[in-house]
Amino acid sequence: MDSGERVVAWVFTLGTEVVSGRVVNTNAAYLGRRLTLLGFEVLGVVSLVDDVRLISTFISQVLASEPDLLVTTGGLGPTYDDVTLEALAKALRVELRLNEDALKKIKEKYDVLKLPLTPERVKMAYMPEGCEVIPNELGTAPGCIMKHRKTLIVSLPGVPRELESMWESYVEPRLKELGVRRVFAERSFRVSGVPESSAAKVVKEILRKYENVYIKTHPKGHEITAPLLEIYVQVFSSDLSEAEKTADKVLEELKKSLEGIGGIIT
Amino acid sequence: MDSGERVVAWVFTLGTEVVSGRVVNTNAAYLGRRLTLLGFEVLGVVSLVDDVRLISTFISQVLASEPDLLVTTGGLGPTYDDVTLEALAKALRVELRLNEDALKKIKEKYDVLKLPLTPERVKMAYMPEGCEVIPNELGTAPGCIMKHRKTLIVSLPGVPRELESMWESYVEPRLKELGVRRVFAERSFRVSGVPESSAAKVVKEILRKYENVYIKTHPKGHEITAPLLEIYVQVFSSDLSEAEKTADKVLEELKKSLEGIGGIIT
Repeated sequence: MDSGERVVAWVFTLGTEVVSGRVVNTNAAYLGRRLTLLGFEVLGVVSLVDDVRLISTFISQVLASEPDLLVTTGGLGPTYDDVTLEALAKALRVELRLNEDALKKIKEKYDVLKLPLTPERVKMAYMPEGCEVIPNELGTAPGCIMKHRKTLIVSLPGVPRELESMWESYVEPRLKELGVRRVFAERSFRVSGVPESSAAKVVKEILRKYENVYIKTHPKGHEITAPLLEIYVQVFSSDLSEAEKTADKVLEELKKSLEGIGGIIT
Repeated sequence: MDSGERVVAWVFTLGTEVVSGRVVNTNAAYLGRRLTLLGFEVLGVVSLVDDVRLISTFISQVLASEPDLLVTTGGLGPTYDDVTLEALAKALRVELRLNEDALKKIKEKYDVLKLPLTPERVKMAYMPEGCEVIPNELGTAPGCIMKHRKTLIVSLPGVPRELESMWESYVEPRLKELGVRRVFAERSFRVSGVPESSAAKVVKEILRKYENVYIKTHPKGHEITAPLLEIYVQVFSSDLSEAEKTADKVLEELKKSLEGIGGIIT
């Protein structure tokens, strides 16, 4: 079975408030799920403090592996610790330059309140050379989208509603143009009475029989006293109906085998 | 003012379900906050798919920077895709060996149900050479704690209640023994009517006057139409009362300056 071309994505969720646990990283879950649904394989999510050198080092390293997509969130605003685009420019070894399109969009926003273009506001228009501006309808800091060798790089703000709005109205349509062909079917169910260590053997045997199938067991109860597992099945293909068919078959086999060792499917 | 010795931590939250957005990474927020409260500076949180090579590459890279602490969560269980300790051994260039203490603890758990030690169950006892076992009261996969050069490495399961129980009953007491002396005071408040780009200037000026102070503005409203900011202040010191005093002073100055440009403190 053809699993479709593999397309790889990395996500950087930047900000000291993320790594210090002041906020729960819902942006990572949002992007991880949206990218997965689009057919991307997300290999990693990296959260870092607002430090130019550290961020640029990690971005450089990830870019060296030539992923199809790299998304950053956070660090685009007007404050001293908004350093994502500076770090990105450093990683790409290009200039951080005043982007006229970004500046125009920022000026229009503040003009409404007759607020002047202070250095803090102009700062948001400094972008790595080559950036195309992503408009921010719900805020002021524009995003940036650019191609670096094989990789499409997208930088978005960290405020969830701005990020989500820009992602859905601007980024996803662009990604769909790339024509990612990899689709998948997914299924999940719960089984009680089977410890994960017993399910492990069943899962291994089924995976040996199928290609392009991913199965993950999530313990939800207690391994010894009250075993309860959520079992997740994902089947990749370039053809959706084929993926659905295989997923149903895998599901049936899994359930039968788990029932065979005392499992109760719920 | 003495800010106390800097102690640096990194967190790895491992698992395909984390990067693909099937779960929200609450473990990262939990550990980030606990570590911050203990005086650690968390520089990064890295989530990766269950891939031995990828995980070991990133762990190696972070270890090269000689942090004081590296914590991993997830990937300790009995299934084929639980590969954290294998990746850790690879990163440390030590053998993955059957740990007799871990095996004993695992055997005791399954003995209760008269379940045999299958290969999947024994797998959880394979640990990098040098691991000291962290008991898992609420599950079966033991954790591992070991020293590598300057870095204390702690590996815990990804199931939140197991992780939290092991962290609080076993890991934190050990970390406190290390005697991290860096303490901090924190404050936060909300101000409406001031765009973040205006607050940015105020914050910058105050930061110029103080050492060991961190201020972050979080936009909660709309920059132009309804500006609302949460302002977070953190002051580091080796002496708590000194930190508290400075925090109060910074807070007062911030509020006064923000009111001076039309802000309403809420």
